[in-house]
Amino acid sequence: MNTVVDWRKSVALTGTVVKFLSVAMLVPLVVALVYGEDVGVFGVSIVGTVLLGLAVEQLDPGTELREREALLFVALTWFVVAVVGAVPYVLAGWGTASTLADPVNALFESMSGFSTTGATVMGEIGTDRHSHAIMMWRQVTQWLGGMGIIVLMVAILPELAVNGAQLISEEAPGPTLEKLTPRISETARILWQAYFAFTVLLAVLLYGLHLAGYAPNMDLYNSVAHAFSTLPTGGFSTKPASIAAFSAAVQWVIIPFMVVAGTNFALFWYLFDGEVRTVFEDTEFRAYAGATAVFTAVLFGLLFSGAAPALANGGTTEGAFANALRQAAFQVGSLMNSTGYATSDFAQWEAHSQLVLLLVMFVGGSAGSTGGGIKVVRWLIVLKTLRRELFHASHPDAVRPVRLGDVVVDEEAIRGVVGFTLLYLLVFGFAAVFIALDATRVGIPLTPMEAVGASLAAIGNIGPAFGRLGPFGSYLMLPDTTKVVMILLMWAGRLEIITVLVVFTRSFWQR
Amino acid sequence: MNTVVDWRKSVALTGTVVKFLSVAMLVPLVVALVYGEDVGVFGVSIVGTVLLGLAVEQLDPGTELREREALLFVALTWFVVAVVGAVPYVLAGWGTASTLADPVNALFESMSGFSTTGATVMGEIGTDRHSHAIMMWRQVTQWLGGMGIIVLMVAILPELAVNGAQLISEEAPGPTLEKLTPRISETARILWQAYFAFTVLLAVLLYGLHLAGYAPNMDLYNSVAHAFSTLPTGGFSTKPASIAAFSAAVQWVIIPFMVVAGTNFALFWYLFDGEVRTVFEDTEFRAYAGATAVFTAVLFGLLFSGAAPALANGGTTEGAFANALRQAAFQVGSLMNSTGYATSDFAQWEAHSQLVLLLVMFVGGSAGSTGGGIKVVRWLIVLKTLRRELFHASHPDAVRPVRLGDVVVDEEAIRGVVGFTLLYLLVFGFAAVFIALDATRVGIPLTPMEAVGASLAAIGNIGPAFGRLGPFGSYLMLPDTTKVVMILLMWAGRLEIITVLVVFTRSFWQR
Ligand SMILES: [K+]
Ligand SMILES: [K+]
Repeated sequence: MNTVVDWRKSVALTGTVVKFLSVAMLVPLVVALVYGEDVGVFGVSIVGTVLLGLAVEQLDPGTELREREALLFVALTWFVVAVVGAVPYVLAGWGTASTLADPVNALFESMSGFSTTGATVMGEIGTDRHSHAIMMWRQVTQWLGGMGIIVLMVAILPELAVNGAQLISEEAPGPTLEKLTPRISETARILWQAYFAFTVLLAVLLYGLHLAGYAPNMDLYNSVAHAFSTLPTGGFSTKPASIAAFSAAVQWVIIPFMVVAGTNFALFWYLFDGEVRTVFEDTEFRAYAGATAVFTAVLFGLLFSGAAPALANGGTTEGAFANALRQAAFQVGSLMNSTGYATSDFAQWEAHSQLVLLLVMFVGGSAGSTGGGIKVVRWLIVLKTLRRELFHASHPDAVRPVRLGDVVVDEEAIRGVVGFTLLYLLVFGFAAVFIALDATRVGIPLTPMEAVGASLAAIGNIGPAFGRLGPFGSYLMLPDTTKVVMILLMWAGRLEIITVLVVFTRSFWQR
Repeated sequence: MNTVVDWRKSVALTGTVVKFLSVAMLVPLVVALVYGEDVGVFGVSIVGTVLLGLAVEQLDPGTELREREALLFVALTWFVVAVVGAVPYVLAGWGTASTLADPVNALFESMSGFSTTGATVMGEIGTDRHSHAIMMWRQVTQWLGGMGIIVLMVAILPELAVNGAQLISEEAPGPTLEKLTPRISETARILWQAYFAFTVLLAVLLYGLHLAGYAPNMDLYNSVAHAFSTLPTGGFSTKPASIAAFSAAVQWVIIPFMVVAGTNFALFWYLFDGEVRTVFEDTEFRAYAGATAVFTAVLFGLLFSGAAPALANGGTTEGAFANALRQAAFQVGSLMNSTGYATSDFAQWEAHSQLVLLLVMFVGGSAGSTGGGIKVVRWLIVLKTLRRELFHASHPDAVRPVRLGDVVVDEEAIRGVVGFTLLYLLVFGFAAVFIALDATRVGIPLTPMEAVGASLAAIGNIGPAFGRLGPFGSYLMLPDTTKVVMILLMWAGRLEIITVLVVFTRSFWQR
């Protein structure tokens, strides 16, 4: 069969990914064994997943993977993996009071995990309500999602020149990207090493704090669980109070790792090579670090001047200055790159601080990181392009390229970046209105900040929003229609929107 | 003097405009004479304006007007005219309880008039509180603003190729535009004729309704006053209840004229020539009419199903069906193209309907009309461009132009349009956050809908927002800082943003 898009190739590859998903399910299985919990849920899931993966793999027509089949594969895989990953939630919840027994909720939680969003409909969070295995599975889905994003960003999207994604590869060091093949590129492997190393390092540090007596409740289980959701900018926690459940020491340690998670991982390769200057001369990194510093300073000023009376949260004994600084740095670090952890219920802060956080949420992570959203490099290009338009208004005949550091940005990439940013804002705006209308329809009127926050938290893969949908809250109360829309937003948002949308266009399937 | 930008040329031309502004002040002077009111305010204003204009005109270096000097002229003129136009408000308010005695309020009201925004800080509106002359001056400022916009759109911006404004001229019929000169182009004159004719026709129809007994309070004064603010999509009214103060018959008559005000005036030239098909084949007109119809239908559905219990407003005797249809058509017709009239306090409607209106407010008028906002033709190009990006994702090597009707849209124009839309949304978003923060600062916390509405109403030159800033409300309560920001937004919004911003860039003044 020599069709334009051979869907069998894409579906078969998805089968391979599903097959390997069963390997990841070994983690919660081991957890269940260690804690003496029911091993049936993950035992059944593993067997089912392997069989499904193997069966679907058989579709492989043995041809080469072409560009559009790769796009279809990416869009399909994130969705199918979320569906398969939801099965343990449904199985574990079966016959219990768990909200995840409901398939829509389970899929929401699973897509929220694999898209590294971290929005939850779990209702009562914690290992006292759910098994250690299930709680760990949530964390694992985020870590897998982050791994997937790294491949997508550095090995797949740049080859397809979607949304100006080629910019990302320009920044990537090491061997030039191979022509798109089912094999993971060398660059991705290098970045995976950084991802893996930072995850291990964070887990070790957190557990070290525990052993040293600085973090009573940060046991080995929680150390691993939070390392799993920090590096992918995931944001899921095993505690209903997120990172506020842990000591100030834990919170201080997590801050730099969140910043790392939103940084282009390729830069660590230079750092490892001793090229510190290269890192600090990187335009995007400077902007990312600068924005973090500025927003932290502003938020610190607001918090220190009393914007959040209830900041005692977290059981800290430090002074008001250190407390405000920690809260500000943590929340900016968490929301800017779309992690979504919280050390305080910022939904209770006064309006100024929440509006600052809303702005922060529009920034996004860096290219080549696991962070979501519009992303720093895109904002740089958008702002430079708008400045050029302004220049053109007074110099209509001048030709001026847009530069990023020393590199001249390709005009087609600019078009892609500006188009993406506009598309993102439009989808965000329409979804916010839809969510507001839908909630009103079922008699749960949302405040505008709740509706706007929910839309942004989903498409930006951030997680928490404001009001009742804040970091200590839940999306459980929302109608199924809104949950489904949010599932689609998380899916599309994580795959840079166009990767998902394109599969639904007629021209995708035609020559 | 042979500088890059000879500001004397721009300033001198502004002087000429100011000189002619005094002619427009004869209208309120005549009104004052007719109603036996104090003629001092406008007498003094006219003399002062003429002298100021004549004096400034002397700066003219006698050189030709070049492109950047034209831009500076446009930006400067709208601001200076607003300042001069504020003088009668201050003079008339002097020593009285009028809120317009305050210079910031007076400038707000004047800029709101000349930018055809229609947002008010007048406090108590009406000829019982203010002289007939002052109330008429507000209406006249809007009509003048609309005249200015027509010249700007068809004779100045297209020559400068700002924001893809060249698109507008492609649609314009008649003699090709002359090279930019101080003389008004032939095209502008043709469009002015349509503008003038429709204004007279509306005034005659409204007064005709009055004489026929269908509109008791629509006397000659009110007929002229509302014709003056309908055609420029202005929205000022002599009544605090806007058009709800008049009969249903009046409201029905105004609806088509609002639609006309948001239509490319060039199309009426074809219509006049009997080329009806050309009009209905115009891509933008079809989209504009289509959007009006769809939004009206949606809003009708909501209103008919009880979204606005207090719809009895307007003293109508028609049934609920006709009432809901009239309200829906009127409010969509008014808010889509940025007129801002109201026949009901839509700020009291339930959330669904207000969100629909919020969406409507993002549309804008047509190119070549007096309507503000992003504009229909830009949305068409943005959507077609995004669709092309989607196509490119699956056909990376394909070259596909963006078409508008039969015309291939120039890539530079596309860049301008997409950039403008993004800039508009960014300025709108930042201003909304600023307005929210600023109001909280002075202890008048706004709801998000109020802050978002105020920002959009100003930059989109719409006028009314939501909540306390709704059509029957006022911006008077806001702090001076917010009022100044809104003055800047109205100014920049009316001049397509870049025309104003560019004057503040360093490169504008350099070679
Ligand atoms: K997240
Ligand atoms: K208006």
